[in-house]
Amino acid sequence: MYNCDVKRMDEKIKTFSTFGDAGHGGITRYSLSPEAHMARDYFVKRMEAIGATIETDDMANMYATLPGSEPGLKRIVMGSHADSVRNGGNYDGILGVIGAMEVLEAIAAENIPHRHPVTAMIWTNEEGSLYPPAMMSSGVVCYDYLPEDIAKKFKKENMLASKSVLDKTTTFGDALNASPYKGDEKNRLNPNDYMAMFELHIEQGPILEDAGKDVGVVTCVLGMFNYRIRFFGQSDHAGTTPMHKRQDALYAAAQALCYLHEEIDKLGRPELVYTTGEIVCHPNVHTVIPDMIDFSIDVRHEDPKVLEQVLAIVKSLPNKEWARCKCEVEMAWQRDTVYFDKELVQYVKESADELGASNQYINSGAGHDAQFASYMIPTTMIFVPSKEGHSHCEPEYTPVESCTEGASVMLNAVLKADKK
Amino acid sequence: MYNCDVKRMDEKIKTFSTFGDAGHGGITRYSLSPEAHMARDYFVKRMEAIGATIETDDMANMYATLPGSEPGLKRIVMGSHADSVRNGGNYDGILGVIGAMEVLEAIAAENIPHRHPVTAMIWTNEEGSLYPPAMMSSGVVCYDYLPEDIAKKFKKENMLASKSVLDKTTTFGDALNASPYKGDEKNRLNPNDYMAMFELHIEQGPILEDAGKDVGVVTCVLGMFNYRIRFFGQSDHAGTTPMHKRQDALYAAAQALCYLHEEIDKLGRPELVYTTGEIVCHPNVHTVIPDMIDFSIDVRHEDPKVLEQVLAIVKSLPNKEWARCKCEVEMAWQRDTVYFDKELVQYVKESADELGASNQYINSGAGHDAQFASYMIPTTMIFVPSKEGHSHCEPEYTPVESCTEGASVMLNAVLKADKK
Repeated sequence: MYNCDVKRMDEKIKTFSTFGDAGHGGITRYSLSPEAHMARDYFVKRMEAIGATIETDDMANMYATLPGSEPGLKRIVMGSHADSVRNGGNYDGILGVIGAMEVLEAIAAENIPHRHPVTAMIWTNEEGSLYPPAMMSSGVVCYDYLPEDIAKKFKKENMLASKSVLDKTTTFGDALNASPYKGDEKNRLNPNDYMAMFELHIEQGPILEDAGKDVGVVTCVLGMFNYRIRFFGQSDHAGTTPMHKRQDALYAAAQALCYLHEEIDKLGRPELVYTTGEIVCHPNVHTVIPDMIDFSIDVRHEDPKVLEQVLAIVKSLPNKEWARCKCEVEMAWQRDTVYFDKELVQYVKESADELGASNQYINSGAGHDAQFASYMIPTTMIFVPSKEGHSHCEPEYTPVESCTEGASVMLNAVLKADKK
Repeated sequence: MYNCDVKRMDEKIKTFSTFGDAGHGGITRYSLSPEAHMARDYFVKRMEAIGATIETDDMANMYATLPGSEPGLKRIVMGSHADSVRNGGNYDGILGVIGAMEVLEAIAAENIPHRHPVTAMIWTNEEGSLYPPAMMSSGVVCYDYLPEDIAKKFKKENMLASKSVLDKTTTFGDALNASPYKGDEKNRLNPNDYMAMFELHIEQGPILEDAGKDVGVVTCVLGMFNYRIRFFGQSDHAGTTPMHKRQDALYAAAQALCYLHEEIDKLGRPELVYTTGEIVCHPNVHTVIPDMIDFSIDVRHEDPKVLEQVLAIVKSLPNKEWARCKCEVEMAWQRDTVYFDKELVQYVKESADELGASNQYINSGAGHDAQFASYMIPTTMIFVPSKEGHSHCEPEYTPVESCTEGASVMLNAVLKADKK
């Protein structure tokens, strides 16, 4: 068994945390921003220092590769993303990059024998915070392998045209053209040159911490659906419209939201998660009765039958009475549960056991680039605990020892794959 | 008894409807916009055509005056506003301007004897749609007469600094300086030069239509309070946070909103109106649990005791359990019921009766410039029915015959006041 180095890990975590430091413990590091380029420069500097070769593809995904001992073998790749949400934390995404860099640095420092080339990777724009959608580059790179209804969301020309949510003008294509890291399409991750992919990530939830486990052996990314639920009422003056005449879309939506909680909770599925995270109100003026509410519902579970039960509740809304308002529901998107490669999952499990890292099987409620990659090449993920389960926010935290343990599990799992 | 002219009214209603025509039956005519200036130009053109003198004050309020037969008497003024909400209708505000113009045109056309000078007026920026707050100019002009807690919201320097809600940069002061209708402070409505004020307005509610009445004799503007209700939870990832660990501010707010409806309705006050018109959600992303919801509640009733009962319900919210979120409530503003001048109310009632216009006493749930003016000089209002009670929206409609009847009631009430 080999171990990664806490001091090297700490150095990388601390340094990456300075690129986009938002001043209160977290970062804002949008993809292809100046801060993100500083992070990429640092990746290049460290990887070149150990003799890795740097390549970039047409989506500015970056690949740093150490050659293996046997010519002609496919590469084993590890990686994640270096961009963050607005006021995000110092671990989501970047830990997978740091872990991949650390595996290469450990291999170089300790001259660990390996047959296959080993690659550390940065995926561009996983969060899609500035240029939606999320998982943009893995969507483009894995396009030909994705189910059709998912693939159609990732047509490269549409991605290039994606507008900045800040200035509503600059496109992702503009940012890409301005990046020194835009490279050649021939360098993309592909099944002819790559044998397997690993992604180390924080759990982003409280399950490992609550269970007192060091490492999560990820088996799948949960299936999910995302619907929009809309209510249409009548806009009228707050001071002059008697209550019994009103068609108040916000009251309708509030009732429906409570009803959804009641009915979904009745299914008695503690592992089911559902979220109404976004709400839009029109005209949203304190003296006017709202005539339109549009809210999102995001539902995730491994079992498609459970998702169907929840969907039936969502779809029943338009048949009920909601404060005299009309109700519509519309699918925004859905995905089936994506199971990771059984062999790679087993390598992760064995490595954790052999390292003495307490571990458990876990699924991923969040989406990751690994989930798209897994349609193309054998892929899996490794989770380390998130303090109090926080993520996509500044309190996000995982101790460096825990991060290093995750990287060590990845290193040994890579070496198991390398034997193949 | 004198009557106003349907044809002249129709001409004015139709012409004003072209200034800011939004293309589907209504208008968007922000105060001091090019469209609003076209409306003012038309006001000047018609008023000068009957020999009225035009004056404007430092808030660009406009006054068109026909002299009376006895020198030295105070003016009787009628008016309302010419600006609209976004995608508003063709009657709110502008009908009071049209009615005032019509009274002057009828007086001029029929040589109706009157002792006092008679003035038609346009108040600037009543809606406050582009530059908040609403009733800005009447607030500034009546500043010294308003209750202190209301007055402090209308300091002229703060009004001039009010920023456009569209470009967040241009101020009301900029718009005022660019207007050819900015005049002199000495021309402001004031109690030395003005004896009484009348404002004709659409009801903006369904009460007159439901009762089959032609005219509403307005007795007061309802007391009200406006509170902000906020919930603070914890932002976490939608896919990774178990339901029992969540502090979902939107779920908390939805439960509280339903609770408010239940508890307020238990008071059994059918004439009470309350509205939750505005809701803000943070971070408002479909994959993130909301950590902050801020919504408004606007409550109106004539009786302060009833308002206190509702306020007690609102203030009880922070003491209850709302999905593990913290709750705060904060007063945004409040006003007491404002009663109109009894004598003027009586003139309106008598005029309606004498004209054979079916009528009833009614209160105003909406705020109007007349309510601020009434702190300074004797003031009252006249309502005509709103089709289906709609207002602040494009379906807003009142037949021209009904508008004309309202103007005729105002004409005769003015002539009764003129006898004084």
